[in-house]
Amino acid sequence: MKFLEEKEKDILEYIKKSDVQKHIKPKHIYDAVTTYIYRRAKRLRPSVLIMACGCLGGEERLALPSAAGVELFHTWTLVHDDLIDNDKLRRGEPTVHRLMENVGKSELNLNDYLAKKYGRDVAILTGDMQHAWAVTFFIETATKVGVNPYIVLEIIKQLESVVIANLIFGETIDVQLGMYSAIEGFNFSEDDIVNMLYLKTGVLYEFAGLAGAMIGKGTSNIDDDEVNAVREFASNCGTAFQLQDDILGVVGDEELLGKPVGSDIREGKKTTIVYEALKNANEQQKNDIYHILGKKNASGNDILRITNLFVELNGISHTKFLAETYIQKAIPYLDNIPSSKYKDLLLQWADYMINRDF
Amino acid sequence: MKFLEEKEKDILEYIKKSDVQKHIKPKHIYDAVTTYIYRRAKRLRPSVLIMACGCLGGEERLALPSAAGVELFHTWTLVHDDLIDNDKLRRGEPTVHRLMENVGKSELNLNDYLAKKYGRDVAILTGDMQHAWAVTFFIETATKVGVNPYIVLEIIKQLESVVIANLIFGETIDVQLGMYSAIEGFNFSEDDIVNMLYLKTGVLYEFAGLAGAMIGKGTSNIDDDEVNAVREFASNCGTAFQLQDDILGVVGDEELLGKPVGSDIREGKKTTIVYEALKNANEQQKNDIYHILGKKNASGNDILRITNLFVELNGISHTKFLAETYIQKAIPYLDNIPSSKYKDLLLQWADYMINRDF
Repeated sequence: MKFLEEKEKDILEYIKKSDVQKHIKPKHIYDAVTTYIYRRAKRLRPSVLIMACGCLGGEERLALPSAAGVELFHTWTLVHDDLIDNDKLRRGEPTVHRLMENVGKSELNLNDYLAKKYGRDVAILTGDMQHAWAVTFFIETATKVGVNPYIVLEIIKQLESVVIANLIFGETIDVQLGMYSAIEGFNFSEDDIVNMLYLKTGVLYEFAGLAGAMIGKGTSNIDDDEVNAVREFASNCGTAFQLQDDILGVVGDEELLGKPVGSDIREGKKTTIVYEALKNANEQQKNDIYHILGKKNASGNDILRITNLFVELNGISHTKFLAETYIQKAIPYLDNIPSSKYKDLLLQWADYMINRDF
Repeated sequence: MKFLEEKEKDILEYIKKSDVQKHIKPKHIYDAVTTYIYRRAKRLRPSVLIMACGCLGGEERLALPSAAGVELFHTWTLVHDDLIDNDKLRRGEPTVHRLMENVGKSELNLNDYLAKKYGRDVAILTGDMQHAWAVTFFIETATKVGVNPYIVLEIIKQLESVVIANLIFGETIDVQLGMYSAIEGFNFSEDDIVNMLYLKTGVLYEFAGLAGAMIGKGTSNIDDDEVNAVREFASNCGTAFQLQDDILGVVGDEELLGKPVGSDIREGKKTTIVYEALKNANEQQKNDIYHILGKKNASGNDILRITNLFVELNGISHTKFLAETYIQKAIPYLDNIPSSKYKDLLLQWADYMINRDF
């Protein structure tokens, strides 16, 4: 989507100009705080915030600081999640805790144990700093581009109460699920899994739609009909996004994704793909899935075997169907929003959420 | 101080009424987020915020939401610091990551390895939630008690840019220092150590003074002379507070402190006490200090031996002197503030900072 590419530039430029950076010290923290931001990324959350603002009549410049804010907010959740999941790669390069583990060795001459601890400690503090930095961008929505301060306070309040509580709820369920074996982990229903996707991912898209709509319409009323319509649209697209992400995690292109395909399988991630495949599997196939899922050292052949099972047993096609269902659920929310360039862009964006290949 | 006891009740009551709590899920996160708050504590930061507001003519009720905010903000830094330092106790009970490690074993039947991981993961997310909750309290300063929203936005901006950047800078230096042995760690000057105390502790006291003064005077101008005076007063008292804390960490009363005396020594904490003692030590005494400092399994006799050395070699008395110097530096900042009940309380509070025994 051309609009996304244009906005990526605007958002990154706005972030780069931030005064907050000059306070961020020492160098390791500064490097860790900025590294994910400066890597290639899609900026889907800030873009939907800008489009949501536009579709209710707001100028793009009014949405730009909050767009930067939602991107930074997303970034701190990535840093803490990557630490919790002990992921190795993010956007094609080492995760923050891995990067700082390496820096601990090369620059501080730490031994393996201390370097690992240093990486973890710096990653915790990095996410904390990014969280705070995100809040300062929202503040600029009032102090730099002149949006009514009560609208801005309501936006920050939503983010820092309901939204974050839901994100953390979702992440905690995910942590708990990760502690169960493959078999035990599937005492959860498909609805439980989709609800977790909503909590972990949908809510921040929902927030981006909400914040953009409030700025665009110039209201602090979160129950306004149009605001609510845009919010629900973004929320459903967000859940669809995560379903598509799970698909790409199994059958996507490593180069494009910036992370090894198969890592979701090795981590034993409990997705609707696995759920559906298990539902349709015979005993032998079930055993194969249980045997490979969550196996840290699964071979290339193991991954191929389980990927084929996920395809054969309709895990992929069913999840694709679910993602499309969420997009179909999202679209009618825009029915009563007046036609505009931004409404068209939102509809294109919805389509992109499930047709993207990275 | 009677005022502190009264305010402790007000602050806790305000926190307990917060709507945000109903969003915090699941139960483990809720329990972890609230546990430190509901333990016995001095509430020195919120109290100085209220007094700072009062001494520039503001009603206490205007300062109460921000007082709750600074307490919550302090709390998340404790949770993440305790995790980073792997401390066992906080306010007389297990730290969050320890508590949740135990809960992981007893309620989720996790093995030792997974329970430890669960405790760490929940502690990261707990601090994140408390950070966000803190921000919502500051917002209520505008939306619930009617302070000008631009003042509130400036207060949150200060907190989420300069203040947190300094806290994290201080914590990172502390993490790096902790990775050096006792000998290497003292290639730092006394000024370096005191600067770290300012960064880790002074800045949040400084912020509490600043925020209270801005609310009290009704200004968003952080360069206002009176605002600046109160801020500098609080900042210097904050550094004195931490010096006194280091003293209590060596010669304090375990019961009163809620943590074992000697833990600073076992952790190898680099304080002005150690610095001064080393400066005055002969070779034998130096070796004794290097040998025991940072020794995780130091015996009761070891602790007694090093404590005696710290006393004999003027480590304690010199640090006491430094703390008094900071209080003497703080007091004249209030010279041009008009006399009032709150000014008197601030002066009493300054005295309490270095004469407290817990």
